[in-house]
Amino acid sequence: MPSSPRRSPASAHPRVPRRDWDADGLAAGVRAGDRRALARAITLVEARDPLAYEVVRALYPDTGSAYAVGLTGPPGVGKSSLVATLLRELRRDGRSVGVLSVDPTSPFTNGALLGDRIRLTDHFLDPEVFIRSMGTRGHLGGLSEATLQSMLVLDAAGKDVILVETVGIGQSEVGVLGSADTVVLVLMPGSGDAIQALKAGVMEIPDVIAINKRNHPAAKTLLQELRSTLVLERNGWTIPIVLTEAVEEAGIDELWAAVEAHRAFLEASGELERARRRRLGAEVFALASARAKTHLERAVAGDPELARLLADVEERRLDPLSAVQEVLERVFRIEGSDGRA
Amino acid sequence: MPSSPRRSPASAHPRVPRRDWDADGLAAGVRAGDRRALARAITLVEARDPLAYEVVRALYPDTGSAYAVGLTGPPGVGKSSLVATLLRELRRDGRSVGVLSVDPTSPFTNGALLGDRIRLTDHFLDPEVFIRSMGTRGHLGGLSEATLQSMLVLDAAGKDVILVETVGIGQSEVGVLGSADTVVLVLMPGSGDAIQALKAGVMEIPDVIAINKRNHPAAKTLLQELRSTLVLERNGWTIPIVLTEAVEEAGIDELWAAVEAHRAFLEASGELERARRRRLGAEVFALASARAKTHLERAVAGDPELARLLADVEERRLDPLSAVQEVLERVFRIEGSDGRA
Repeated sequence: MPSSPRRSPASAHPRVPRRDWDADGLAAGVRAGDRRALARAITLVEARDPLAYEVVRALYPDTGSAYAVGLTGPPGVGKSSLVATLLRELRRDGRSVGVLSVDPTSPFTNGALLGDRIRLTDHFLDPEVFIRSMGTRGHLGGLSEATLQSMLVLDAAGKDVILVETVGIGQSEVGVLGSADTVVLVLMPGSGDAIQALKAGVMEIPDVIAINKRNHPAAKTLLQELRSTLVLERNGWTIPIVLTEAVEEAGIDELWAAVEAHRAFLEASGELERARRRRLGAEVFALASARAKTHLERAVAGDPELARLLADVEERRLDPLSAVQEVLERVFRIEGSDGRA
Repeated sequence: MPSSPRRSPASAHPRVPRRDWDADGLAAGVRAGDRRALARAITLVEARDPLAYEVVRALYPDTGSAYAVGLTGPPGVGKSSLVATLLRELRRDGRSVGVLSVDPTSPFTNGALLGDRIRLTDHFLDPEVFIRSMGTRGHLGGLSEATLQSMLVLDAAGKDVILVETVGIGQSEVGVLGSADTVVLVLMPGSGDAIQALKAGVMEIPDVIAINKRNHPAAKTLLQELRSTLVLERNGWTIPIVLTEAVEEAGIDELWAAVEAHRAFLEASGELERARRRRLGAEVFALASARAKTHLERAVAGDPELARLLADVEERRLDPLSAVQEVLERVFRIEGSDGRA
């Protein structure tokens, strides 16, 4: 792995008092890799502050250099530990890294992982690392939006790699993983449901599979099961399965090599650029849908006429889809005499 | 279980040629329990035919008597077999039953379950049973809509019980299970991911848990694990865990007794009615959101101006959220100078 930090460290950028930051100042700070500007920008993104939209708008032309890796899998398989270990490995290699955790079960929030072995607090002073646990209380739509915006900010800040951790047990987390270039599915012995979901086609086959807790007696059995039951090939890419053990930092080189191999594969065919374009389009559509939903929610909450409609449905005077039709006509002026919006 | 078929069998209703059915005729046929009218109405619902909306509108005042039970769980745990066995049990007891399968992995479509032991085809001639596997290719939104509408049709047709089978491995399938009075989560030894998801609060605790494949050596261990690690109480209801073995028809009485106990609990407190009202409201909102999304998709597909916007995003001339804002203004006339719709 070649060492390639793309920008000067934070110390090169002059400090600006927090209250004075405007969009241009924040964008300049982020571009220069200023840690506080970065933290502030992402906080504003999470708060859906109007300023955040201006900052991201200003930064957007500077994005596109970071490589985004999504790590997903059931709770309890050690995704966070794997992310922490990958982070160390990437830092040893001179890469700057942004970490976003959108897993409500992640221990990233309290900064203590693997007891004393890998303390994330070690990285909190490293200007080339930025870690943020995204709030997961809101809508998935709002969360996808905040995650995408935060990834763009980290990208513009010159991070070489962005790691996104998210919990997933079946249906693909399209929203949050929609911007990842490589998706790593983390499993462990005992992940029977996820394997059934993969076999049944309910869960999409990822780009790379990591079997964590490789010292577990059933790890090799799981490896054999995956190899014998799944079609581990997609559009010419053979999905590698890597055995890891985050606590011992074992298999991390191999895992990263698998990610790099996937990247090289995508780049060689021009697919990286094409996939990014497709995903950006899909993202715009998904975010617009999520916003339309939020708009609808607010409209229904504040409109006594719409509240009356719901009461009619509850009392079986008006059927649900006729109510839906009336709501849509009222809120979005969508009409459709055949009942289809 | 008291025997209580609410309406006369299909043979009482005069046959009408298929092509001549209009909304009133179809609604009358469904109300009378005519099997062909029922099949036709649900086919129209699945096809999103305008006639279907009229039929459901006409039938809606006649709904509210059926009890809806959702069975969810990871693929491979035997949900379909459990549904088939429950169906037999309910028929022995004189209940009329509607079955909707919205699980893409369900074997219901080919009518052969458990080899020769329980042949669903036996029920295909039973006028008190109606089984339909819902297509799962479309949007989740469209599927939820078709499922809700089909449940209303089955309800108006006088079915005592409606069983809805759906695949779920983590995040709750709010859309499809949104109309179920009692949700049964089916697990088996090896469902480690689902249990982690329950523990972590990523998956909602259901109303009843069934551990299928109870003859498996680890079934008792799973039972103990669930009992010792989950909070099996919610608003005064203690979540029962039942051990079943669908192939041997073992534990099915206990499972149905648990569902009936939950129903009695909901009815005693008046919560059944309140929960149904809440769910209907939520359903209207969810369906309106899904429709708004479909509308958006069609609008974007057909509008060269919107296609140009997406191209600008892909070429990094316009940031994604500015594009979202423009799309929303154009399609729904939603405005928001702060970038929030």
